[in-house]
Amino acid sequence: MLSVLVLSLLAAPLIHAQDSPTDEDAFFIRKIYDHTLTNSQCYDWLQYLTRRIGGRLAGSPQAAAAVEYTRQMLDTLGLDSVWLQPVMVPHWERGEPERVRIVNSMKMGSVDLNALALGNSVGTGSAGITAEVVELRSLDEVDSLGEQLRGKIAFFNQPMDPTELNTFAAYGKAAGQRVYGASRAARYGAVGALVRSLNTRLDDIPHTGSTVYDDQADPIPAIAISTNDAELLSRLLREEPVRVYMRNNSRMLGEALSYNVIGEIRGSEYPEEIILVGGHLDSWDVGTGAHDDGAGCVHAMEVLRQIRLMGYQPKRTIRCVLFMNEENGLRGGRAYWKWSNEQKEYHTAAIESDRGGFTPRGFTADGHDEVFTKKFKRVIEWIPLLAPYGLDFEKGGSGADISGLKSQKGLLFGFKPDSQRYFDYHHTPIDGPDVVNKRELELGAASMLSLVYLIDRYGLD
Amino acid sequence: MLSVLVLSLLAAPLIHAQDSPTDEDAFFIRKIYDHTLTNSQCYDWLQYLTRRIGGRLAGSPQAAAAVEYTRQMLDTLGLDSVWLQPVMVPHWERGEPERVRIVNSMKMGSVDLNALALGNSVGTGSAGITAEVVELRSLDEVDSLGEQLRGKIAFFNQPMDPTELNTFAAYGKAAGQRVYGASRAARYGAVGALVRSLNTRLDDIPHTGSTVYDDQADPIPAIAISTNDAELLSRLLREEPVRVYMRNNSRMLGEALSYNVIGEIRGSEYPEEIILVGGHLDSWDVGTGAHDDGAGCVHAMEVLRQIRLMGYQPKRTIRCVLFMNEENGLRGGRAYWKWSNEQKEYHTAAIESDRGGFTPRGFTADGHDEVFTKKFKRVIEWIPLLAPYGLDFEKGGSGADISGLKSQKGLLFGFKPDSQRYFDYHHTPIDGPDVVNKRELELGAASMLSLVYLIDRYGLD
Repeated sequence: MLSVLVLSLLAAPLIHAQDSPTDEDAFFIRKIYDHTLTNSQCYDWLQYLTRRIGGRLAGSPQAAAAVEYTRQMLDTLGLDSVWLQPVMVPHWERGEPERVRIVNSMKMGSVDLNALALGNSVGTGSAGITAEVVELRSLDEVDSLGEQLRGKIAFFNQPMDPTELNTFAAYGKAAGQRVYGASRAARYGAVGALVRSLNTRLDDIPHTGSTVYDDQADPIPAIAISTNDAELLSRLLREEPVRVYMRNNSRMLGEALSYNVIGEIRGSEYPEEIILVGGHLDSWDVGTGAHDDGAGCVHAMEVLRQIRLMGYQPKRTIRCVLFMNEENGLRGGRAYWKWSNEQKEYHTAAIESDRGGFTPRGFTADGHDEVFTKKFKRVIEWIPLLAPYGLDFEKGGSGADISGLKSQKGLLFGFKPDSQRYFDYHHTPIDGPDVVNKRELELGAASMLSLVYLIDRYGLD
Repeated sequence: MLSVLVLSLLAAPLIHAQDSPTDEDAFFIRKIYDHTLTNSQCYDWLQYLTRRIGGRLAGSPQAAAAVEYTRQMLDTLGLDSVWLQPVMVPHWERGEPERVRIVNSMKMGSVDLNALALGNSVGTGSAGITAEVVELRSLDEVDSLGEQLRGKIAFFNQPMDPTELNTFAAYGKAAGQRVYGASRAARYGAVGALVRSLNTRLDDIPHTGSTVYDDQADPIPAIAISTNDAELLSRLLREEPVRVYMRNNSRMLGEALSYNVIGEIRGSEYPEEIILVGGHLDSWDVGTGAHDDGAGCVHAMEVLRQIRLMGYQPKRTIRCVLFMNEENGLRGGRAYWKWSNEQKEYHTAAIESDRGGFTPRGFTADGHDEVFTKKFKRVIEWIPLLAPYGLDFEKGGSGADISGLKSQKGLLFGFKPDSQRYFDYHHTPIDGPDVVNKRELELGAASMLSLVYLIDRYGLD
């Protein structure tokens, strides 16, 4: 009798479907949290991905292991289908530990700096490069310095703005130097680029991240240094000319076959309307990609697991996609968009979790101009149901891997956890399982499932 | 010219005082955050308190050092007065490392458990105690078990409810077993008490905390064991009777002289209206009291520091109080209330920070029934100014050290940071400086100062 009662309570929202949120929805969302906080697997999955597999750069053996592991795990959930979507990815290799050294400073002698080559960077050659350093406080200064960069090492030293409460906004303002600094400086004959780590605090940990070359100049090597070392170098430059030795033997190995990992539960009434939940399976090679983006992957997997555990039959198709190569190519995302469009699919919504596994705050929402306002209005009506869990909605970018689905004219969401500590760990050796909290991670999965549930129940069209 | 301009901008809210919040208030609060996030001292103070001084149990040499250190620091801030308020505190000593051991289990042999004596606990004597264990799932079970506890060790094993989103609510439901378990069980002749650590997660870390004896029975020793060990012991008890050996030589050494540390800036218009900001300076002896409550102390100190740095002249008196002996006696709070009432003081508001140094979420508010509703309504009007910083208000308890000020009929606030990780660290050896984030700590100080500013500017009466 008990099990029948439980089942009927869980199924209640489906039996009495209405057009507006009800107390039954509040009851069901409460159940989602109760279930996820008492019986989840996301933290165990994350432990495996990080401790047993490790850093999962696209093209690496670890990325292949992560594909196989998550496929196996999705296979245990009793989904309607699980498959691998092939995608060719760039295979970049860091090579031997990089070295950045201030040489023969009058004031300090020689000093080694904490350094990590940027992803996709070319190498310096085994002899390394020694040149005078020119400091730039922003990407825009490249053009004003112009020919003064010739033969020099361009040192991009724009800090993340600490007064931005949302650290992703501060990241957005400062990330250009990492992505485009080397290629812009190369146009004026710079021989190398040093980049201040994108981090809200002063510490000794260098942060990698992708740099992007263009065809306007030969690529030059690009290496990140820690925020403390950026401050040191900057202080020294105010007193004397500084020469730096930099060396890395990073290289692009060519393309490799990899996969997006996909699992789905088909909808009972509107199977053609897809609600995607996802994260990216690849990570940087340093650290083990716990917050970025192991957390997002296991969030998405837990959503499907809880749907099955709770015996909830969605009306729409719920699909989990673990994208490959977000970090240094976005090939997984691009392949998925292309394939989905070719299938004439319609994603009524897509939710990416790629901002870490911290305490949930809500979701950013984005969409095609033609539909966004109307659909977002619908979502806003759900705030009273989600506010008790600390969730809200705001307009803003969703996630790199799903951004290309905008042309399908559904709504795109980015899961938004607390942002204060994310950039302490982002793209570093310390982004490991011990900086992810189990309970916060579970709350993330419950938040995403609650939104999935509301979209499934009421639709967005 | 620049400095005059800056000064006039900062002073703007005072010059154009009005009755309702204005754009100038929004501007000033933005300045508070900008200042605190770019020039704060709270994290350095916390480093000193935790790394250089350490655990600061009332009556200990470390507590005396903390009094002297914070007095000296307040003295550097250019306040109108800084003083020490004498208070006699209980001086409890943990003694040698405690031991809890399952003896001669059929299934497991002998197993040592991770244990910490509860604060104020008596000792077992050097020989220790060995007795059979009786498990209780709540404090209420004491009376139903009654005589079955005679000669036994009462094992209180009520977990914190993981489905409570606010972990303090879960703590509130489970903390009775730690505070009253030993004294209640002693009434029926139990010889010792083991208590499941108050922690939201399963791990090997025991959590101390105060136990309170009454005069209805002789005190019995009380020791906390880790959540993993509580689970182990419980599993074993389902299969066989279990005998446990427990030993500690904790003791109460008598009373010691200590102090509340107080500093204030006197108000220019209504000096008799006091706005208190505070935390408690004592901590448990294990760990270094970083979140509990070094964070609260440096939050309060930073509020006064920023007021001076920003050149803001408050209309009301702003007083920082660092209370002594919150953890195992509340003597500092009681002495302060008594003294304040004798002086016929009026605290129009008091804000305690004693829930850790995590990302701010707002404030709980409490007050005397006669005045609460009216005053809280005033506060609610400020939400639009504080919501951009993630802050809200809710009714709820303020803080132990200020709770006795309710009779003065002002409003009492508890600073409310994110609660998800607090009980991972609470009262443990791992509550140290490395689990407090500088930026989150600074945001806490800015949040408290923003509320102080609004109360000072508009009053609550």
